[in-house]
This record gives sequence, C-alpha cells and structure tokens, in this order.
Amino acid sequence: MQLSQRIADLQPSPIREILSVVERPGMISFAGGLPDAETFPAYSGLSVPPAVLQYGASEGDMGLRQRIAAELHDIGLDCRPEQVLILSGSQQGIDLVAKLFIDAGSIVAVESPTYLAALQVFRFFGARIRTWPAAGARLAYVVPTFQNPTGRCYSAGEREALAQACDDAGTPLFEDDPYRELAYDPCDRSPVCTRLRQAPWIYQGSFSKVLAPGLRLGYLVASSDLMPHLVRLKQAADLHSNRISQWLVANYLDAADRQPRLEKLRRLYRDKRDHFAETLSRHFADLAEWQLPPGGLFFWLQLKRPIDTRPLLAAALAEGVAFMPGENFFADSDSHPGYMRLNFSLAAAADVDRGLAKLAALVRQAAG
Amino acid sequence: MQLSQRIADLQPSPIREILSVVERPGMISFAGGLPDAETFPAYSGLSVPPAVLQYGASEGDMGLRQRIAAELHDIGLDCRPEQVLILSGSQQGIDLVAKLFIDAGSIVAVESPTYLAALQVFRFFGARIRTWPAAGARLAYVVPTFQNPTGRCYSAGEREALAQACDDAGTPLFEDDPYRELAYDPCDRSPVCTRLRQAPWIYQGSFSKVLAPGLRLGYLVASSDLMPHLVRLKQAADLHSNRISQWLVANYLDAADRQPRLEKLRRLYRDKRDHFAETLSRHFADLAEWQLPPGGLFFWLQLKRPIDTRPLLAAALAEGVAFMPGENFFADSDSHPGYMRLNFSLAAAADVDRGLAKLAALVRQAAG
Repeated sequence: MQLSQRIADLQPSPIREILSVVERPGMISFAGGLPDAETFPAYSGLSVPPAVLQYGASEGDMGLRQRIAAELHDIGLDCRPEQVLILSGSQQGIDLVAKLFIDAGSIVAVESPTYLAALQVFRFFGARIRTWPAAGARLAYVVPTFQNPTGRCYSAGEREALAQACDDAGTPLFEDDPYRELAYDPCDRSPVCTRLRQAPWIYQGSFSKVLAPGLRLGYLVASSDLMPHLVRLKQAADLHSNRISQWLVANYLDAADRQPRLEKLRRLYRDKRDHFAETLSRHFADLAEWQLPPGGLFFWLQLKRPIDTRPLLAAALAEGVAFMPGENFFADSDSHPGYMRLNFSLAAAADVDRGLAKLAALVRQAAG
Repeated sequence: MQLSQRIADLQPSPIREILSVVERPGMISFAGGLPDAETFPAYSGLSVPPAVLQYGASEGDMGLRQRIAAELHDIGLDCRPEQVLILSGSQQGIDLVAKLFIDAGSIVAVESPTYLAALQVFRFFGARIRTWPAAGARLAYVVPTFQNPTGRCYSAGEREALAQACDDAGTPLFEDDPYRELAYDPCDRSPVCTRLRQAPWIYQGSFSKVLAPGLRLGYLVASSDLMPHLVRLKQAADLHSNRISQWLVANYLDAADRQPRLEKLRRLYRDKRDHFAETLSRHFADLAEWQLPPGGLFFWLQLKRPIDTRPLLAAALAEGVAFMPGENFFADSDSHPGYMRLNFSLAAAADVDRGLAKLAALVRQAAG
C-alpha cells in the first residue's frame, strides 16, 4: 500500500485530542474555543419543512445567501448573493481555499502566531509557511478581529496597511472572521476586504460562536473571479451543506430577538472575560504577561521564563485541567517557547480559580 | 494571482447544473439521483438535546458509531466502533480517501462506467484513471451493489474475484455502497470488503437514500491501519459532522418502525421502477437496450445508434425534461457515445410517459 506523499505532512491536531479530553467528567477546560452551552438556542417543537430534506444547491439555499449578503452589506462589504457560498463550518472554507491556491512549495503568508488548524491544512497541501508580509505569497491568511490565538484586534491603520500591501503585491487575501460578533470593548471591526481595491479576496464567517457549533455552518464570500472555482470545490467536497442547519440559521437571522440575544451573549462573555482576568492576575502575575482581549474567546499568555509548555499538557490533564500550548500556533513551534492560550468562554466561574491555580503551580514548578 | 495547478483539472460537474435545473417549475427530471419526497420522515415537534449543539468529536458521536458497527456486523462486516468515521455525506468520503491515496500521476482503478463525481475528485488530485483491473493501482474504487450508473449488482462470483484480485495485488479497495437498502429483486449484496483477507479497505454508506439527503450524513468504516489518517483528514476538512443529523440518524436506527418504513420505501420504488420499465418499452424499444435494474435508482440505456447524447441535453431541458448523458460516466467520454442514465425515483408516474416520449423524440431525431 502506498499513501499520498502529502499524508506525511498531516500532523495530528492538538484540537482533536483536546475535544475528546474535554468530555471527561470533572475536567476544567481552558483549551478549546467552545461556547458556553448557556448561549445555545432552545430547539424544541421544531417542525422541519419537508423541502429542506431533499438535495440542495452546492452554493447553499438562495434565501440564506441573500440574508448573508444583506448582513455583509450592513458592515460595508458589498457583495451579491451569488458571491456567497454556504460552508459546512468555516474549517471547510480553509480546506477549499487551500485546494484553490496551494501547490507543493507555494508560499502562504500568515500571522505569527496564527490559527493552528489553518497551519495544518496549508501544510497538508504542501505550503511553505512564511510570516506576513512575505514576498511571492500565493495567499495571505489573516484573522484581523479578535485573532486566534492572541485576541488582538487590528487598528484601522493596520487594516488599511494590510489591504494596501495585498493590493500592491496582488496577493489574494483570505480573511477569517469567526469572532466578530464577540466584541466586548469598542474597536474597529470593519472587514479588511472592504478596503481592497483590486486584490482577489475571500472573507469568511461562522455561526458556531453566536448560535451553535453543532450546526457546523459557516459561509464565505469571495471576489467574483474566484467563485466558480470555489463552488466546484464545494460540490466535490460534500455536494452541499446540511439543509436543516441552513434553515435554522436563516430563521436565526430573521428572528426578532436576535439583537437582544447577541447582547446577552456579549454580556455573559464580557463578565467571564473580566472574571478570568482578575483570577489570572491572582495566579499568574509573576509568571506571565498578557493583554485584556477586547473580544473573542482567548487570553494569550507570554511566560516570563520561556519554557516550552507542550510537555506540561500531559501533567495538566492528569490534574484535570486542559489548556492549549501556545507553541502550536507558530509555524516554527520550537523557536517560540513560552506561550499558552487560555479559553475563558467555557469553564464555569467557580472552576476558573481552581483550574488557574493548578496551571500556575505547574508552570511555576517547570520554570524552576 | 496564481491558482493551484490542480484547479485546471477541476471540471464543472453535470450533477450541479442538473440540481439547479430540477428546481424549475414543471421540469420533469430523470437526471439526478433524488429520492421521492414521499419517503422523507416527518420531522415535527422535534426537541434537540442541547448537548448536540456543542462541538463534537471528529470521528462522530460514539453512540452512532456503535449502532453503525452493529449494523455492519449484521451484514457480515466485522468492525469495531473505533473503525467507523461519520461523514458529511458520502461524497466527503471520496474527498478524504482521494487525499489519503492520490498523488499527481497515481493510478486509480475504476469500473467503466463509474460514478462521475468520484471521477471528478480523483482527477482533481491528479489521478490517472484506468479501468479495473489495472496494474499498479494505488486504489480500486467500486460500487458493486446497484452500481451508479448501470444499476448492476455483482454476483457472488464477481465479488469473490474482485476481493481476491485486491488481495493478490495488495490493492486497497474502496467500496461505495449508497444503494444497498434499495433492493427490489433478490441478489447478493454482501460487501466485497467482507471477503478480503489482507488488502486494506474502506467501505462507505449513506443515509441520503433511506432517510433524507438534506441531512448530509454518511459514514465510512476502514481497516485499522487507515483510520488514524482518515480521522485527521476529517478533522482538517470540517472538524466533525453535523450533530443534529447525527442525532436524527441515531434515532432512525433505533426506531421501532424502521423495517416497515424501509419495506414501504422499497415497494414504492419497485412500483416506480416497473412503471418506468413499461413506459420505456413503449417509447425506447427501437432506440435502445437496457436491463431491469434489481435495485438502486437508475436505468442505463445503450442507444442502438451510438450518438453522443451530451449535445441533446440542452434541447431536452428546453422541452422541460432533464436526463444524464451517459458519456459523463466514462473516464474517456468521447470514446463511449450513446448512453443515457435515467432516474426513476423522483418523477411522478403521470410525468414519466410525457417525459420519456419527449426524450425518445429527441433521440429519434438526432439519430436521423
């Protein structure tokens, strides 16, 4: 048996291991980007329209595409419904865009650090990963708003500079924006793609954080030149997205209580963030530095003594605490020891103190 | 902007165009493999368990994997639940298996004709397509039970011969089995994979035909050596499958009325097949030859005068009838003129006569 060459470049993702670990009873998890189940909608007494059970269009249901195009128009991203492609979650967008642009040896420019599952996919298709800006890049992949893992939000100036650099070099921009609704403090969240004058672009969003991850529904919108390719790639990948989820998301976008629900969700997460920040200060003040994230789901800690946190994970799990070693988010992990990504949306307030105390003890011990 | 080299090999799929055309009011479609909406479950008063809305395991929900492993055990395919991977429809299985095995230039052995969307994916990853048996194949892809497009069902002898050839050559066998429950006449439906002694294997099934395509849910089960790779590929593709669909399918597999529902579905489709066969005899007896398919969703016509049916599609659509030109199912389409694939599961009985009369007139005219 001979497997494809690219399979050797497919590393196991730390995300996967963590998703299975989190389900263990009693585990305190700061590891994944899991929403608080309290934010999920109550789906009871649902009557699914029979039409939704049939095969559908690869592009997605037109009613949903129209609603999303209207939403994007409201945030300054002018597009036609024909430019919207419904995805089986935004991870799928990364797979499709990688297939569209990457050959073995292609340069992909990313932020450093960046979303590790994007690194995983780009590498699988043979990309050489470079830190943005990188000459000769086939593609620039960025998460400008509440970045994963750092939580950073680009300023207006940074957004403008990124757009201009893409325009100048003709580099296609892939803007991943799953966290934009999770804003706790004022900041510029306008899509960088709205500032482009000529570079090709893909902008993608997700309903996993504001509605429910189990629906596995996201979307991308792309410049018109890219759409025919992306639609064919979607068709080859899974024919079309789940239609019950498309129907539920369309209902959500039309719901009268959508804005109050979003406000409530932001309040919940803002409170959790603030409580997490206080607790961090108690346990990690002498061990690490961090910024208060203005949105998103994560704190990003830089340890004062740069020990590699990857070997700490097993010990932490054994003590019932999960976290994400920050080294995983760098293309050259070994050159960037001493980072941790901590999620604040999932763990109950009562568990945060206990979990962070244990983690701090482990770090303190490892740092000698 | 530079796209990947493989994108040049991604042809638009006739399936996509047909799915959009079928939605036109008044269109009579023999083109896709769409189930009769009458077979769909009535989903009313559904209360979705909140746990199902969270992120889940890439492999799929363990309860569902256990049920599927038990089902497979009942048809002779011994496997552990850990060997079951839940898919976002079985098209996704083709994408994952192609990623696992195919490099540019790899030989993939297929039946001739074969499922066209599999051809599309294999080619996209750079495969050279050969008719089975083919020396040096990385992978053999087959649909032994109610094959798409021919409707054929392998005999026990053919199944044994295929398994032995894979064992002898060490060729991994990819057995696609979406139609197995749609059996109208007695025939051997035992998975070929059960007969393998040493070759690696992947067997996949779908809930699109017996439950509803809009759920986009299928599964694969694979020899243990392949599973770790396939799980990583699934994670990179879309993290995990839709959990509401997983929950609905698990309920379906447990439902007390499952067998009566399946019997009813088979009766409906057997009647439709028989009515279609009679009507075909009235209109196509002098134009084509065909076999009565013992299962599945399609009649496969070989025209007596081998005209290329692809140019007829536009005229047929203009007259309100959709069909699938059979040439599309051959890797070397231009060398195999004179085939049509006609679906009998979707069109209402009253429309079959009108649609086939129009199609026959077009073929008669084109054949001079």
